[in-house]
Amino acid sequence: MFLGRVVGEVWATKKAQDLVGKRLLVVEALDERREPGAAKVTPVVAADPLGADIGQHVVVAFGKAARVACGGDGDFAFEAAIVGIVDDFDVPSAPASWRLDPRAARRGGS
Amino acid sequence: MFLGRVVGEVWATKKAQDLVGKRLLVVEALDERREPGAAKVTPVVAADPLGADIGQHVVVAFGKAARVACGGDGDFAFEAAIVGIVDDFDVPSAPASWRLDPRAARRGGS
Amino acid sequence: MFLGRVVGEVWATKKAQDLVGKRLLVVEALDERREPGAAKVTPVVAADPLGADIGQHVVVAFGKAARVACGGDGDFAFEAAIVGIVDDFDVPSAPASWRLDPRAARRGGS
Amino acid sequence: MFLGRVVGEVWATKKAQDLVGKRLLVVEALDERREPGAAKVTPVVAADPLGADIGQHVVVAFGKAARVACGGDGDFAFEAAIVGIVDDFDVPSAPASWRLDPRAARRGGS
Amino acid sequence: MFLGRVVGEVWATKKAQDLVGKRLLVVEALDERREPGAAKVTPVVAADPLGADIGQHVVVAFGKAARVACGGDGDFAFEAAIVGIVDDFDVPSAPASWRLDPRAARRGGS
Repeated sequence: MFLGRVVGEVWATKKAQDLVGKRLLVVEALDERREPGAAKVTPVVAADPLGADIGQHVVVAFGKAARVACGGDGDFAFEAAIVGIVDDFDVPSAPASWRLDPRAARRGGS
Repeated sequence: MFLGRVVGEVWATKKAQDLVGKRLLVVEALDERREPGAAKVTPVVAADPLGADIGQHVVVAFGKAARVACGGDGDFAFEAAIVGIVDDFDVPSAPASWRLDPRAARRGGS
Repeated sequence: MFLGRVVGEVWATKKAQDLVGKRLLVVEALDERREPGAAKVTPVVAADPLGADIGQHVVVAFGKAARVACGGDGDFAFEAAIVGIVDDFDVPSAPASWRLDPRAARRGGS
Repeated sequence: MFLGRVVGEVWATKKAQDLVGKRLLVVEALDERREPGAAKVTPVVAADPLGADIGQHVVVAFGKAARVACGGDGDFAFEAAIVGIVDDFDVPSAPASWRLDPRAARRGGS
Repeated sequence: MFLGRVVGEVWATKKAQDLVGKRLLVVEALDERREPGAAKVTPVVAADPLGADIGQHVVVAFGKAARVACGGDGDFAFEAAIVGIVDDFDVPSAPASWRLDPRAARRGGS
């Protein structure tokens, strides 16, 4: 799993059957080389069963764990999902760019 | 899963039995360091059950999810597949190089 | 698996059902480019069944192994977990930044 | 899966039981930063059920897919295998270093 | 799988139950940017069922393959293992830093 920030959303009309009706969010991982709002490494596309919002911090899981988080261990055609919306974190060495956006925290997941 | 752009195709006569008849596309991930048309990181070879075209944006999944997207949870000899052809995306911080190619959008997946 | 150092913790009220009650630690991998206390690569978020503490060295496993370490091969919605708290290591070529923090060693996992 | 070039072979007398009798090839991924013959990123060691030759382009798959390609979904002690020997590819943006070696094409897989 | 060199060992008293009694080695991957004895990328911690020694070249496998190599397809709490101790390799483009250490070859795995 990694700690990331939701930076956007993608839409696909033509897709695998079991992705129909699922939100696909774009999440970039937080690391210390990161400036706020800049996508420095390849972002991940994750299914979102929790209702996260752009700007929120989330925990993303891969593989079977992602499918479990979306309702069962079914054979879904995705392997990344948001498994937690982060309220707070304590990482003393984290750079300022990791700061939670208080507006996103208010807005999202509610 | 990641958001990528189809940059090409590979052909192999000699291959694993269950790859026979499957299109193998070359997809490069979108990140902010990317110039249009330049392969900056190692591209992925993905099976294509959706009929994507060069230049189109796609979502690629790995592992079991890729096999599910290609028709069942069978034991296929591949672990990457296109699971969605992207019509549009909203990533406010995305660089210009992420722009959808309107000609590819018209052409592909139809 | 990789050798890392616990650098923090995240909290999420809204999360996948089977993450409820699990500690989620932030762990950064040790490599030679690392300065003490600086997160140079993307840290991993790992479930912690062993009671590790900030500053301690740990071994992190992924995938099914992570779920096994947390009590069975159940279908949990995570895929990274701490599987060992490191007492000592012998890597002659390791940089000084890999040194164990004796205070963390005393404090943690007890 | 990725597109790579076979750069060598490794031999191990002492190995997991089900690797006995299997060729283990060293394959480096093709990316645009690559000069011909130079190993710029960490190469992969892949089981080879197809009879590829040094210099040939191949498609490598990971995980269960690799085991399927080697004859069944058995519990083999490897997770990377060559699943296709590339005859040709069409990647308009590919650098010159991706060119197929015509001698390798003639020699290999026959 | 990747080709690496054993650079050390870690010890953990507090660990997942099925890691008890297993040696955990630190292995760094061989790539061309590597100087002898320098850990340039994040090393892997691998279970060692074969008795490898520091300085030896090994092939490391991940996931289920790693668990198979350690005796069955059991649900072990690790996902990396040494599956072969390398006697020799033929990679014409390999840098000098890949050279086998003849002393390690004599010493290890016996």
